[in-house]
Amino acid sequence: MALVVQKYGGSSVATAERIRRVAERIIETKKQGHDVVVVCSAMGDTTDELLDLAQQVAPAAPAREMDMLLTSGERISNALVAMAIHSLGAEARSFTGSQAGVITTGTHGNAKIIDVAPGRVQQALGEGTIVLVAGFQGVSQDSKDVTTLGRGGSDTTAVALAAALNADVCEIYTDVDGVFSADPRIVSDAQKLDTVSYEEMLEMAACGSKVLMLRCVEYARRYNVPVHVRSSYTDKTGTMITGSMEDIPLEQAILTGVAHDRSEAKVTVVGIPDEPGYAAKVFRAVADAEINIDMVLQNISKVETGKTDITFTLPKLEGPRAVELLTKRQGEIGFSQVVYDDHIGKVSLVGAGMKSHPGVTATFCESLAEAGINIDLISTSEIRISVLVKDTDLDEAVKVLHSAFDLGGDEVAVVHGGTGR
Amino acid sequence: MALVVQKYGGSSVATAERIRRVAERIIETKKQGHDVVVVCSAMGDTTDELLDLAQQVAPAAPAREMDMLLTSGERISNALVAMAIHSLGAEARSFTGSQAGVITTGTHGNAKIIDVAPGRVQQALGEGTIVLVAGFQGVSQDSKDVTTLGRGGSDTTAVALAAALNADVCEIYTDVDGVFSADPRIVSDAQKLDTVSYEEMLEMAACGSKVLMLRCVEYARRYNVPVHVRSSYTDKTGTMITGSMEDIPLEQAILTGVAHDRSEAKVTVVGIPDEPGYAAKVFRAVADAEINIDMVLQNISKVETGKTDITFTLPKLEGPRAVELLTKRQGEIGFSQVVYDDHIGKVSLVGAGMKSHPGVTATFCESLAEAGINIDLISTSEIRISVLVKDTDLDEAVKVLHSAFDLGGDEVAVVHGGTGR
Repeated sequence: MALVVQKYGGSSVATAERIRRVAERIIETKKQGHDVVVVCSAMGDTTDELLDLAQQVAPAAPAREMDMLLTSGERISNALVAMAIHSLGAEARSFTGSQAGVITTGTHGNAKIIDVAPGRVQQALGEGTIVLVAGFQGVSQDSKDVTTLGRGGSDTTAVALAAALNADVCEIYTDVDGVFSADPRIVSDAQKLDTVSYEEMLEMAACGSKVLMLRCVEYARRYNVPVHVRSSYTDKTGTMITGSMEDIPLEQAILTGVAHDRSEAKVTVVGIPDEPGYAAKVFRAVADAEINIDMVLQNISKVETGKTDITFTLPKLEGPRAVELLTKRQGEIGFSQVVYDDHIGKVSLVGAGMKSHPGVTATFCESLAEAGINIDLISTSEIRISVLVKDTDLDEAVKVLHSAFDLGGDEVAVVHGGTGR
Repeated sequence: MALVVQKYGGSSVATAERIRRVAERIIETKKQGHDVVVVCSAMGDTTDELLDLAQQVAPAAPAREMDMLLTSGERISNALVAMAIHSLGAEARSFTGSQAGVITTGTHGNAKIIDVAPGRVQQALGEGTIVLVAGFQGVSQDSKDVTTLGRGGSDTTAVALAAALNADVCEIYTDVDGVFSADPRIVSDAQKLDTVSYEEMLEMAACGSKVLMLRCVEYARRYNVPVHVRSSYTDKTGTMITGSMEDIPLEQAILTGVAHDRSEAKVTVVGIPDEPGYAAKVFRAVADAEINIDMVLQNISKVETGKTDITFTLPKLEGPRAVELLTKRQGEIGFSQVVYDDHIGKVSLVGAGMKSHPGVTATFCESLAEAGINIDLISTSEIRISVLVKDTDLDEAVKVLHSAFDLGGDEVAVVHGGTGR
C-alpha cells in the first residue's frame, strides 16, 4: 500500500462531467489499496471570472482581499470533487489550504510555503477516507490571513503535501501525456520522456517548458519527491521526475529536450562607461523595481570611446516599466541610449549528457547557422545551452535543434488544448 | 460614536454596480464617526448556481461538503465589498465566519451559533478599519469543520455579532422599507411600522412574515439587540425592532399587523381511539422523523364510536413523508384513515394590544364570516390569533382583517422584488 498525492488542473475539473471522471480515477487508485490525497485547481475559467468581477468592482484591489476572493475557486472545485466521490460510494473529505496546514509567508498573491502541518489530513487518512485539499492557497504564519501561492501554486501544494506526508509519489494530472523532448505543437515527432532528473526539469522549467512551474520542481528536488506528470485523459504512464542526474548511468546520459520561451524581451543599455560600478548601477535600478532578469551580456568595450553596451532579457510584461525606470536614471547611470526589443525568443537545449559529450555547443551553433538563423545572445549552464533568436525564427530553431540532436521518436505526438494553474 | 453592524442581502450585492453602492453607504456610516461591521450574503443567484452545480455532480451530496461549497458564495461577496470600499479610499478587511469567531454546532446545513469570539474583528476595528464578515457560516466547535446556519443565516450572523460586540444597533438592509402591517403585494394601504417589540416580531416571523427569520429575532430578543430593518435602496428610516411589549404604554398597545403563510399543509388522522396515549403515538411518529408541527386540533369524541380525529399542520415539503410514515404505522396507532390537504393557508393577526382589548377574536371571526370565508382551525397565543382557511381565500382574508382592524396607512406601499438569504 502506497500513499499517492494526485493533482488535477483546472481543465480536468472544468465541468460536472469531467469532475465525475476525475472522481472515478481517484476511486480507482483508492481501490488499488492506496491512501489518496487529491489537490484540485479551480474549475476551468473560474479564476478569470473572479478576476473580472474584481476588476469591475475595484481596478486596483488590495492583495489580501484578492486572495480571499480567488481562494473560493479551489474551495468550490474541491467540494464538488468530494461530492462526486461520495456519490460513487466512497468516502471523501475536503479541506481548505488552511485546514490542511499549508502555512505560508504573508506575501499575498505570491506567498511561499514555509511549512505543512497536515495533522487533519493524516487523521482523515487514518479513518480510511480520501482527502481533498484546496490547491494554490494557504494561511500566513503571522497574520493568519488567507494567502495564495501565485502561478502554478496548485502543483506546489501537491508536492509540498507529498513531502510533508512522505508520499510515495506525487502525480500531476494535466492535459499533455508528460514532459516532451520539445513542444509537440511545433515538433511533430517530439518524444514523451520516460524519466527526467530534477536538475534537467529545473532547466526545462526555467527555459519555458510550461508543464511544471520552477517552484514546484525546486520543492520536489529539495524534498526528493518523485513527481509523475501524466495525462488526465488516458491511463498511459507519463514522465517520472526523480533522482539526481548524478544517478543516471553515463552511457544513458544523453540530451533531454529542447525548450523555448516567447515571454521575454531584450533591453540593451548603450554607451555605458566601461569602468567598475556602472553595470551594477543598471542592475540595481532594475532589481529595486523587483524585476527579474534572465540572460545577461556585456559587450567588449570599444577602445576608442571607453564605453560598452549591456544587454539583458526580462519578462515582456515588465519591459516597458524597466525602460521607463532606466530612462529616468539616465543622467545618474550615465549611458547614452536604451534599446528595447520584444520580438525575440529563447531556445534552449537541456541534458545531463552535455557535461560528458564535447562538441554539443558546436553542433548547436552549426545547425542554427545552416538554417540561416542568427544567434543574438548565448548563455549556458553545466547542462543547458540557451540562445536568443528573432521571434519569427523560434519555431524553426526548435525544429532544427530537435532534429540535429536526434531527439525525435517514432510516434507523432498527440496535442490536447488548455492548461490549469 | 456608535458601533453599527450592517447586513446586506443577496439582492443588494447582486452586481458590481450594487456592490459599489453598498460600499458608499458603508463609508457614509463610517464617516459619521461610527465603527462599522458589515455582514453580506452571497451575490444574487450565486447560491442557486452552486446548488445547481452540486446537483449535477452528485444528486445527494454530503452536508459537510455542501457547506464547504456554499460558503464560498459569502466569501466572494465579502471580498468584493472590501475591494469596493478600498477603491473608494477607506480601509476594509474581510473575514470568514471562522476567522470572525462564529462558533457553531456541528449540524451541517442548519448549524446553531453557540458562541461568537470576535477577537480578530475587535482588533481590526481598533485599528480603524471597516470589518466585513461572511454571513451564513461558522466553524463547528467539535470538528472545526465549516458549517452553514440555514435559511436567513446571514441575519442571524449579523445579530449574533452585534450581541457579541455589544453594538448599538444591527441594521438589516433589505429590498423592502421595513416591517409592514401586511404584505404590500396583497394589501395596497399596508403600513410600514415604526416600532415592533421582539415578541410581536417573533409572532409575525412564526406566522409567515418573511422580513426576518424566527431564529434571528429570537437571538435579538435574548441578547437585547436593537434591530433596524430598512431598505438598501433609500435612506428612509425603516422599522425598529426593540424592547419588550411590556414596555409599550397601554394606550399605544394596539394591533401590529396581519401575517400570512402559504407554506403549510394539513393532515387529519381520522378515527383514533379516544383514550389516553393514542394522540401521543401520532405525534411521536411525526417527531421521530424530525418534522415540526404547527397548529393542532383534537375534535370532540363521537360518543357512539368512542373515536376521535386529530388535525395538525406541518410544512408542505414534509407532508408526503409524514403521510407515508403514519400510514406505515396505521395498525400500531390504530386509526382508520389519514386525510392530507395542501390547499390551505394560514392568516394571523398579531399585536400586544390583544391582551387588553376584549372582542378582538369576535371581530376577527365576524369579519371573515361576512366575507364568506370559512375558518378551518383556530389557534391563539396571548398576542396572536391564527386561523386556517382555503388557500384561494387567503389573500381576501388578509385584506378583510387588515381593514377590519383599521391597520391601513395613508400611503400606497412600494413593492420591490427579490429576497436575500
